Amino acid sequence: MTEKLSEETRGPLLNPLFSCGWATVEGRDAITKTYQFEDFIEAFGWMTRVAFWAEKWNHHPEWSNVYKTVEVVLTTHDVGGLSSLDAKLARKMDSLAET
Amino acid sequence: MTEKLSEETRGPLLNPLFSCGWATVEGRDAITKTYQFEDFIEAFGWMTRVAFWAEKWNHHPEWSNVYKTVEVVLTTHDVGGLSSLDAKLARKMDSLAET
Repeated sequence: MTEKLSEETRGPLLNPLFSCGWATVEGRDAITKTYQFEDFIEAFGWMTRVAFWAEKWNHHPEWSNVYKTVEVVLTTHDVGGLSSLDAKLARKMDSLAET
Repeated sequence: MTEKLSEETRGPLLNPLFSCGWATVEGRDAITKTYQFEDFIEAFGWMTRVAFWAEKWNHHPEWSNVYKTVEVVLTTHDVGGLSSLDAKLARKMDSLAET
């Protein structure tokens, strides 16, 4: 079962992400990051790779794309805030952006 | 060369789109439409088909996706407003959403 992050798990899961460009969203229990790619092909190619994992894990981002920029917001609607799934998808997004 | 839509061409190109769910964006010379699909696979699948045309025509949308919803904004940054390319891409998006 997916559960909202507890006070104990929050730091260990989120702090490494904050060191990698993720930030909290004002007024929401959510995290956000803006990725910059070389061009549209790289940006949308990355989104496509992420999309497969999002669908596989049944956990989908809120995201917007303008040419080579992709802005992502992650939260878990079912629990009304951040869960471990958000940290998992965030790490996957970062790793797919590095390759 | 891409040019900003003239007063004469604006109506004939945009009015058919306004009849298909497109609307102007407040404060910008741009058009917007929100598409609803069956699920994420349908939504992102449609985005992928659109992405190929956008890249082929070197004319890219501003768009955001949350699960089965995709919100699109079209404008032509090079001319500082709407051009015939926006109408062309809008028609392509509608036709790809129907199939």
